[in-house]
Amino acid sequence: MERLRERLYRQLDLDAWRGEGVSPLNRVILALVLVSVACAALGTEPTLAHLRPTLSAIGLTLAAVFTVEYVARLWVKPLAPDFSGRWGWLRYALRWHALIDLAALAAVWSEALIGHDVSWAVMLRLARILRIFALTRESAVGMATRELVWAIRERGIELALAGVLGLILIMGSAVGLYLAERAVQPEVFGSIPRAMWWAVATLTTVGYGDAVPATGLGKAIAGFTMLSSIALISVPAGILAAAFSDAFQRARKAAKERGPDA
Amino acid sequence: MERLRERLYRQLDLDAWRGEGVSPLNRVILALVLVSVACAALGTEPTLAHLRPTLSAIGLTLAAVFTVEYVARLWVKPLAPDFSGRWGWLRYALRWHALIDLAALAAVWSEALIGHDVSWAVMLRLARILRIFALTRESAVGMATRELVWAIRERGIELALAGVLGLILIMGSAVGLYLAERAVQPEVFGSIPRAMWWAVATLTTVGYGDAVPATGLGKAIAGFTMLSSIALISVPAGILAAAFSDAFQRARKAAKERGPDA
Amino acid sequence: MERLRERLYRQLDLDAWRGEGVSPLNRVILALVLVSVACAALGTEPTLAHLRPTLSAIGLTLAAVFTVEYVARLWVKPLAPDFSGRWGWLRYALRWHALIDLAALAAVWSEALIGHDVSWAVMLRLARILRIFALTRESAVGMATRELVWAIRERGIELALAGVLGLILIMGSAVGLYLAERAVQPEVFGSIPRAMWWAVATLTTVGYGDAVPATGLGKAIAGFTMLSSIALISVPAGILAAAFSDAFQRARKAAKERGPDA
Amino acid sequence: MERLRERLYRQLDLDAWRGEGVSPLNRVILALVLVSVACAALGTEPTLAHLRPTLSAIGLTLAAVFTVEYVARLWVKPLAPDFSGRWGWLRYALRWHALIDLAALAAVWSEALIGHDVSWAVMLRLARILRIFALTRESAVGMATRELVWAIRERGIELALAGVLGLILIMGSAVGLYLAERAVQPEVFGSIPRAMWWAVATLTTVGYGDAVPATGLGKAIAGFTMLSSIALISVPAGILAAAFSDAFQRARKAAKERGPDA
Repeated sequence: MERLRERLYRQLDLDAWRGEGVSPLNRVILALVLVSVACAALGTEPTLAHLRPTLSAIGLTLAAVFTVEYVARLWVKPLAPDFSGRWGWLRYALRWHALIDLAALAAVWSEALIGHDVSWAVMLRLARILRIFALTRESAVGMATRELVWAIRERGIELALAGVLGLILIMGSAVGLYLAERAVQPEVFGSIPRAMWWAVATLTTVGYGDAVPATGLGKAIAGFTMLSSIALISVPAGILAAAFSDAFQRARKAAKERGPDA
Repeated sequence: MERLRERLYRQLDLDAWRGEGVSPLNRVILALVLVSVACAALGTEPTLAHLRPTLSAIGLTLAAVFTVEYVARLWVKPLAPDFSGRWGWLRYALRWHALIDLAALAAVWSEALIGHDVSWAVMLRLARILRIFALTRESAVGMATRELVWAIRERGIELALAGVLGLILIMGSAVGLYLAERAVQPEVFGSIPRAMWWAVATLTTVGYGDAVPATGLGKAIAGFTMLSSIALISVPAGILAAAFSDAFQRARKAAKERGPDA
Repeated sequence: MERLRERLYRQLDLDAWRGEGVSPLNRVILALVLVSVACAALGTEPTLAHLRPTLSAIGLTLAAVFTVEYVARLWVKPLAPDFSGRWGWLRYALRWHALIDLAALAAVWSEALIGHDVSWAVMLRLARILRIFALTRESAVGMATRELVWAIRERGIELALAGVLGLILIMGSAVGLYLAERAVQPEVFGSIPRAMWWAVATLTTVGYGDAVPATGLGKAIAGFTMLSSIALISVPAGILAAAFSDAFQRARKAAKERGPDA
Repeated sequence: MERLRERLYRQLDLDAWRGEGVSPLNRVILALVLVSVACAALGTEPTLAHLRPTLSAIGLTLAAVFTVEYVARLWVKPLAPDFSGRWGWLRYALRWHALIDLAALAAVWSEALIGHDVSWAVMLRLARILRIFALTRESAVGMATRELVWAIRERGIELALAGVLGLILIMGSAVGLYLAERAVQPEVFGSIPRAMWWAVATLTTVGYGDAVPATGLGKAIAGFTMLSSIALISVPAGILAAAFSDAFQRARKAAKERGPDA
C-alpha cells in the first residue's frame, strides 16, 4: 500500500516527478480534461443530439475518474515535504488550484447528474482547463510560465501605455466615423458605441464587414484607421518581443552561472 | 490649511508622489475621466435614451469634480520647486497639458449646460483622455513613455521607409485591380481611389469583403497583394521590436551604472 | 560514363555541390516540382477544361523527368562517402525523403495514366513540395532550416503555454457568445462548437463576417475578444522573435569561433 | 550664374546637402510627386468628373516643374566629384534612377497632352514614387535603406523557408477544403485554384467572407487553417525582428568604432 502511494506520488505530483517535463499519468489526465471539455462543448450542438447519450456516458465516466484522481492527490500529497503532517492534505486542498479542481469536479458531477442545464456549468468547465496552468505551476514547466509572466509584467507600464494609445485610436476613429456616417447609416454609425464596434473590429483587423463606411469622408477616415491598426498591433508585439528577449537571456545567464556551482 | 495643501500636493502632483507608480487620488481621477468619456459615448446611443437624465447628472457631477480638481492643482502647484513664487500657478496653467485640461473642462461644462449639441464636444472629450499622457509626462511612469517615444523616433527613418514601401504596395495593388476589374465591377473597382479602398482594407488584413475581385486575373493579383500584406505588417513590427530591444537594454544598462553611484 | 556520373553527382547531390546555395540542376528540378503542382491544381478547375489535354501532356512529361531524376539520384549516390558500397543506393532509397520522392512519383504516374480520379492524388502531390525541405536537409541551406527548427523547439514550452492560453481565450469567448446570442441567433451561436467557429475566426483576426453578434452584451464580449486577439498574436510572435534572435546570435558566435581555427 | 548652380547643387543633390536629412527643395519635390500621384488617381474617379479640368491643369503644371527639375539636376550634377567632366551629365542621365525619372516625365507629359488614355500611364506613375527611393539611395537617409535591405537579405534563406512552409500550408488547406466542400459549394470550393483563393484570404487573416466552409468537416479544417495563420505571420515577423536587431546593433557598433577615429 505504501509503495503504491509512493509511486502514485511520483506520478501525480509534478514536483516529485524526476523525469523530463510532465509525468505519463499527468499527461493522460491533461488529455482527459481536454476530452471532457470537448464532450461538454459537443453536447450543446443540436445536430449532434443523437450523440448525447454517448457524451453523457463519457461525462459520467470522466467525472468518476477526476474524483478518484482528486482523492488520490489528497492522499499522496502529505509525502511532499511542504505538506507533511496530519493535516497536510487539508492545507493542500485549500490552495487555490486545488479549490479550482474541486469546483470543476462539482461542475462535472452536476452536469452528469442534474442534466442539461448547462448555462452555468459550461463557464465552470473552463476552470478545468485553467488547471493545466495550476498543474504546471509546481514543476519545471512552471519555469517557462514564470518567465513569460515576468517578461509581460516587467513591461507592464509600456503595455498599459500601448493600451491607452489603442483606446485613443479606437475612440478617435469611432467619433470620426460617427460624425461622418451617422446621417447616411444611422443603423451602424448612429451612435458612438455603435461606431466603436466598427472601430474595434477594424483596428484589430478582424473586419467583419457588417459595418462599412459609405461616404467619401468616412472611407478616408477609415483608411487612416486601417493603416494605424498596423501600429496598434506592432507596438505591443515589439514590446513583448523585447521583453521576452531580455527575460530569456537573463534566464540563460542565470542557468549558466548556476551551472558551475553544481 | 497649509497641511491640507501639502498633502493635496503630494497626492495630486505626480512628481511629488513618493510611493510606487501613480498616487491613489490620481488613480481615482483617471477612472473618473474614463467614466466621463463612457457617459458621453453612451449618451449618443438612441436605444439608451431613457438613461440620458442619469448620464446628464453624472456628467454635471463629473464637471464639478474636474473643476475642483483643476483649481486644486493650480493651488498646490507653487509648492513644486519649478513653479514656486507668486505667478507659479499661472506658469503652470499656461503649460500645454494644463491648457488641454482647461479645454476639456470647457467641453464638459458646455455639454452639461448647453445640452445635446455633441457634434463638436465629443471631439474635445478625447483630449481628456490625452491628459492621461499629460499626467504621466511628469512622473516615473513617464520614463516608460519616453523610452517608447525614443525607441520609435530612433528608428523613424526605417519606419518612414516601411511606410513608403507600404504606399507603393497600396498604389500598385490598387492600379492592378483597377485595370483588371474596372470593366466587371465598376462600382467597387471603377477608379483608382475606389481600388485603393480595397487595397488598404486588404493590405492591412482587415478584409471587409465589400469589394472582392471577380475575375481570374483580379484574384491572382489580389492573392499576391494578400501575401505581401504579411511583409507590410512584419517589417514595421520587426523594426519596432529591434528598436524597443535596444532602448530597453540601454535603459537597463543606464540604471545599472547609476545604481552603484547612489 | 564515370565522368558523367561524377558531374551528375556534383549537380544532383546538395552536399556535393561546391558552389553557393543550390546547384543549377536542383533549381531546375525545384521549379519543375512547382510547375507540376500548379498543373495538378489547374487540372481541377472546370472553367479551364479546355486546357486539360495540355496539362495532362505536361504531367506525363514531368512524370518521366522525375523518374529519370529519381533513378539518376540512386545511381550517383554511392559516390557519397556515407553511401559508398554496393548497397549504398538501397540505403539511400530507404531514407524517408527518398521514400517521399518515390510516393510522389507514384502519385504523378497514377494521375497521368489512370486519369481524373484526383481525390487522393492531390494529397500525395503535396509530398512533392515537402521534398524541397528534404533536399535542403542535406546542404548548407539546411543550416538555416536547422536554426529555425532549433529556435522554435527551444521555446516549445513557451509556445505550448501560449497555445493553452489561446485555447482558454477561444473557449471563453465561445461560451460567452453562446450564452449571450444563442436565443437571438441560434443558427450561428446556438451551440458551443458553432460559437467556437466564430471565436477562432475572430481571435485569429480572420473575421469572415458570417457570424456577427447582434445583442449589446454579445457585442461587448466580442469587443473584448477582438482586443485580446492582439495578445493571442503578439505573444507567439514575441516568443519566436526572442528565440530567433538568440539562435541567430549563437550561430554567429559559433561561426566566429570556428573562423580563426580554419 | 555659377553661384546659383552651386546653390542649386547643394539643394538638389542629396549627397551635397550638408544639413540633417533631406534638403528643403527635395522635400518640396517629394511632396509634389505625391500631389501628382494623387491627382492622377483622383482623375479616374467618375464622381469627381467636374474636377478633371482642375486636375489636368495641376498635372500640366507639375509636368513643367518636373521637367525643369530634371534639366536642373543634369545641369548641376557635374559639380559632384563622381560626375565631373564634360559628359558627367550624360553618365548621370544613364543611371537607372535618372532613367526612371525620365520615364516618369514621359508619362506625366503623355497624360497631360494626349489625354485620358490612362490605362498604361497609371502604371508608369508608380515609378515616380519609386524615385523617392532613388533619391534616398545617394544620401544619409540611404544608410537606413541599406540597413533594412541588408537585414532582409541576410535572413533571405530563412524567409524563403518560411515562404515554402507558407506555400505548403496554403496548398494543404486548399486541398483539404476542396475535398471537404466541393460537393456542397462548387462555386467557391469546386477546384483547387478556387480553394486556394479562400486559403490565401484565410491564412493572411484577410478573411473577406466571400468563401466560407459550410460542412462540419470543412469548418474543422478551416479552424486549424485559421490557427496556423498565426504561425504563418509570426515566423517571418520573428525572423525579421531578429535580423533587424542584429543589423542595428552592428550598425551602432560600427558607428561607435568609427567615432573615436574622427
